[in-house]
Amino acid sequence: MPRQAYVNGRYRPHGDAAVHIEDRGYQFADGVYEVVPVYNGILVDEDLHLDRLDRSLRELRIEAPMSRASMKLVARELMRRNRLSNGFLYMQVTRGVAPRDHKFPKNATPSLVMTTRQMKPHSAAMLNNGLKVITVPDERWARCDIKSVSLLPNILGKQAAVDAGADDAWQVDREGQVTEGTSNNAWIVTEGNQVVTRNANNAILNGITRITLLELIKAEGYELVERSFSVEEAKAAREAFLTSSTSFVLPITQIDDQPVGNGHPGILTGKLRQHYLDYMQSLGKTA
Amino acid sequence: MPRQAYVNGRYRPHGDAAVHIEDRGYQFADGVYEVVPVYNGILVDEDLHLDRLDRSLRELRIEAPMSRASMKLVARELMRRNRLSNGFLYMQVTRGVAPRDHKFPKNATPSLVMTTRQMKPHSAAMLNNGLKVITVPDERWARCDIKSVSLLPNILGKQAAVDAGADDAWQVDREGQVTEGTSNNAWIVTEGNQVVTRNANNAILNGITRITLLELIKAEGYELVERSFSVEEAKAAREAFLTSSTSFVLPITQIDDQPVGNGHPGILTGKLRQHYLDYMQSLGKTA
Repeated sequence: MPRQAYVNGRYRPHGDAAVHIEDRGYQFADGVYEVVPVYNGILVDEDLHLDRLDRSLRELRIEAPMSRASMKLVARELMRRNRLSNGFLYMQVTRGVAPRDHKFPKNATPSLVMTTRQMKPHSAAMLNNGLKVITVPDERWARCDIKSVSLLPNILGKQAAVDAGADDAWQVDREGQVTEGTSNNAWIVTEGNQVVTRNANNAILNGITRITLLELIKAEGYELVERSFSVEEAKAAREAFLTSSTSFVLPITQIDDQPVGNGHPGILTGKLRQHYLDYMQSLGKTA
Repeated sequence: MPRQAYVNGRYRPHGDAAVHIEDRGYQFADGVYEVVPVYNGILVDEDLHLDRLDRSLRELRIEAPMSRASMKLVARELMRRNRLSNGFLYMQVTRGVAPRDHKFPKNATPSLVMTTRQMKPHSAAMLNNGLKVITVPDERWARCDIKSVSLLPNILGKQAAVDAGADDAWQVDREGQVTEGTSNNAWIVTEGNQVVTRNANNAILNGITRITLLELIKAEGYELVERSFSVEEAKAAREAFLTSSTSFVLPITQIDDQPVGNGHPGILTGKLRQHYLDYMQSLGKTA
C-alpha cells in the first residue's frame, strides 16, 4: 500500500493529497499545526499536543475540525495504514476554503490534514559532535506562542544557517536575548550547572518537549530557571542544547564561531537526553 | 463555461483547482502574491505588479515560475476564459512542493496559481459616507515590504475591525506611528492641505496604487510628503484616505471613535480618486 495522507474526511495516496487553492492556509497562512513524535508506536504526549492545538485554534478563533476522540482515531488509522512505529504525525488545521477576503468567512468548514513520516534514529555523528548554530535577528511577528503555519521567517532563518554551514539558527530579540531556534527551544547550562531556558510568553512557542523536559528536570532535582539569556551568556555557557518533537534533546557545541564549553556535547545534556528517551520508553510500557 | 483557474500549467474549473498538501505555501507560508486590477479589460500597471512580484521572489530566493511574457499570456488567457473586463487578477507563486523541511528544497519547482474575480463598482454609500477604521498594534514581522502570503496578522486586524463595526484597521508601530491598513496604504491630508503617506521601507508594503498616485499627485502639483504620522495626527487631520489595487482611492471619515475633519469624505480625496480613475481610463485608450 503506498503512503497515505488524511485530507478532509478521506484517506488518499500521498501524491494525490490536495487542498483547494482558496484554502485560507494557502492564501493567508490562516492555520495551525502540530508535530507529534511517534516512538515505538506510541503518540508521545498526544494530549499535550492536542491541548496546544486547541489553544492555537482558540487564539485564532478557528473551530475544531472534529472532536478530540475523532482526531485520535484518524491519527491511529493513518499510522496503521502507513505502518508507522517510529517517526512523527503531522496535523494541520486551517480556517477552510472561502473566496479570498481578509475577514473571517461566515460559513467555512475548517480543513484538516494529517500525514505521517518515518524517522531514522539520530546519527551517532550528530550525537557525538553536537550541532552548530548561528544567531540571526528574530524577525517574527508578535504572537510566536501560536503554532501557526506563518513560518516564513523561520524558514529564512533555517536557510541562513544552512548557507553558513550550520545546523540551525538561534533567533535573537531586540534586546540581544535568544528567543528560540527556528523549530526548537534553546537551552544552556551555566558554569554553576544551572539549566536555563527562556520563559514561555508570546516571544516563543512553548514546546511540548520543553514542557516535558522541565518536568523531568524538576523530578531529577537538577537546578533550573526559566529566564531569557543573551547570546554572550550562551557563548560563555558550559553546555547548550535544543529540544523539539523530532530532535528530542540534541547537544549544541558551537554558537556562531565559538565552541560551547570544551567544544564537546555536554555531560548534563547527555543525561537529559537519556532521561527523555527513558520517558518515551516508559510510555510504551504503560499503554 | 464555468469559472476557471490556472494551476501549474493547467486551466481548471475553479471548484477543482487544487495544490498538493505539501506545497510550501500551505505548510510554511513560503510564497508571494499580487492582485492586479482589471479595468475595462486592461491589467492596470501590470509591469509594476510583475516588477514587485520579481522583487518579492528575489528577496525570498524563489525562482520565477515562468518568463514574464508567459505570465502575461496566461493572465490574458484566463481573463478571456472568464470573460473578465472589470475586477482583478490574483496570482500566487510559492516555492513549490517538497517533503516538509524548513530549509529550501533542492529540486522543487515553483507553483503558480492565477484566479480572476469580477468586481462591482464601489457603492455610492461607500463613496458618500467614507470608511471607518480602527487602530490596532502592528504585530507583523520585520519584512512587510515583501508581499508574502504570511498574512495572519493582517486578517486578525481586519477581523478586529469587522468585530468593531469598522471597515478596516490601521496598524500602529511601537512608536505610535501608523504603518498601513491590513491590505492598503494609509494617507492623510493636513490642515495645510499637504498630502502625507508613510515612506516605503520594511515596515510597509509599497502599494502599486500608492506608487501611481504619488506620480499623479506630483504631476498635478499638490503638496506631498512621504513620512510617518501618528494616530493623533491622523485624527486631527483634515482628510484621510486609503489606496489599494481593489479600492483605488477611498475616503476615510472616522478613525477609532473620532470623525476625520468634518466627518465627510475629503474634497482633495475626491479629486485624487478622480485622477486615479482618469488614469485607469486613459490606459484603455493607449492600449
